[in-house]
Amino acid sequence: MKYEPVGVFDSGVGGLTVAREIMRQLPKERIVYFGDTARVPYGSKSQETIIRYSRQIIRFLKTRNVKAIVVACNTASAFALDTIQPELDIPIIGVVKPGAKIAAETTRSGKVGVIGTEGTIRSRIYTETIAKHDPNIQVMAKACPLLVPLVEEGWLKDKITVEVATRYLQPFLESDVDTLIMGCTHYPLLRSMLRRILGNQVNLVNPAYETARGLKRLLQDNDLVNDGKCTADGKHYEFYVSDAAEKFMEFANNILPYDIDNTQLIHIEEY
Amino acid sequence: MKYEPVGVFDSGVGGLTVAREIMRQLPKERIVYFGDTARVPYGSKSQETIIRYSRQIIRFLKTRNVKAIVVACNTASAFALDTIQPELDIPIIGVVKPGAKIAAETTRSGKVGVIGTEGTIRSRIYTETIAKHDPNIQVMAKACPLLVPLVEEGWLKDKITVEVATRYLQPFLESDVDTLIMGCTHYPLLRSMLRRILGNQVNLVNPAYETARGLKRLLQDNDLVNDGKCTADGKHYEFYVSDAAEKFMEFANNILPYDIDNTQLIHIEEY
Repeated sequence: MKYEPVGVFDSGVGGLTVAREIMRQLPKERIVYFGDTARVPYGSKSQETIIRYSRQIIRFLKTRNVKAIVVACNTASAFALDTIQPELDIPIIGVVKPGAKIAAETTRSGKVGVIGTEGTIRSRIYTETIAKHDPNIQVMAKACPLLVPLVEEGWLKDKITVEVATRYLQPFLESDVDTLIMGCTHYPLLRSMLRRILGNQVNLVNPAYETARGLKRLLQDNDLVNDGKCTADGKHYEFYVSDAAEKFMEFANNILPYDIDNTQLIHIEEY
Repeated sequence: MKYEPVGVFDSGVGGLTVAREIMRQLPKERIVYFGDTARVPYGSKSQETIIRYSRQIIRFLKTRNVKAIVVACNTASAFALDTIQPELDIPIIGVVKPGAKIAAETTRSGKVGVIGTEGTIRSRIYTETIAKHDPNIQVMAKACPLLVPLVEEGWLKDKITVEVATRYLQPFLESDVDTLIMGCTHYPLLRSMLRRILGNQVNLVNPAYETARGLKRLLQDNDLVNDGKCTADGKHYEFYVSDAAEKFMEFANNILPYDIDNTQLIHIEEY
């Protein structure tokens, strides 16, 4: 079982920032990545729909014999993880809890900010998860629905993106928030811009990084660490999408440390 | 048959601008509207996927006994209409051909512009349809992927939206284009802004308006005009979505001339 791959899924390309962290921190692990590009984005959809989509994806990943699952999508972590976890016989981890935990541990002002999609923010998942760590921490949350389309348009360093991000971040600048969670997997691609807008007083939390650390512990606890001799070269990574494989590969090759040359299309609705 | 409703579908809320024109121009017609809010947007998805989705939606609409179908989505009109038309035993009309026809007839400079989603522009459907009317017309097409999220964020009169639209429209301002097709159903909601950016030299074509006119002719030609006594009061309109019915109604009530108080959720994947 320990030589089987880790399944990683997201609504589209955003979860590649999580896959990238796993590749960096756990270079011996094989990965099967699924991006639901036919039904992206998840951020504006309802909980019921996200649970249905997540179940389909997990059924698909299990056909690839995954030993553990990473929900590399904040909306799916918020909406579906608690429902799906008891249905599974393999370990699963989302991006929300690791990000919330480090933010709760890091803040000194006791005020944490969260930015994300409409779905993630509406779910109040970060607010509730942080409250479980420390009910005295105040959480200020803001949906930033335009940041994903701006990243996907490729306007990563554009002045319009700066203007939009500055407007979204304004309430945090006028507050005592000292820790801001990038609660959407696309946002780390805007990290240096967000950093410039927020200044050095605010600590930026990247849940992708914390999730890869959490996965490492989860594999250790379940005796699932791949201790084989294989070295990372991009060949033990498999990519699947529900639509537009070419476009996915192009985006992936801008993000990942290895060039990928094969992405398979599957009909996720059949799972 | 003539007393049955017209089926109208779109990837989400955008097609309501088409439904609104049908309500205005054909007030006696009943409408069954379907918005595929679980899988929106279509603009970035592949032709194969859009055809599959459109077939499912048409199977659903036929369970509502529709007498004709309006594809109120530019991407689906571009990708799916020609494939689906021969499979049907009722008339169907899309938004592309009526918009392309009026643009070809209106231009004096012989240069027509088109703006739309990535999918619509990549399909070259407007370029090819205009060429069928007059091969001498030059078509300049540009994808504007951020305009839909900006409309859905509600930034309809915002200076950031002006900046984004101005950047997208710049190539048209530097050209002899005298007719610009708003090739996405969300864009008429930005009409006055686009008009200000373009000035009065450019004629803005709204395919929604032309499609309602085309539907009128299509119903006449097929002896399907509803000549009953019913008057428009919002009660002979039915709305269905694949997700987030509440949010849909809120948006619809900002656009439509009648308040709607009932939108039903259906599982479109089961059709």
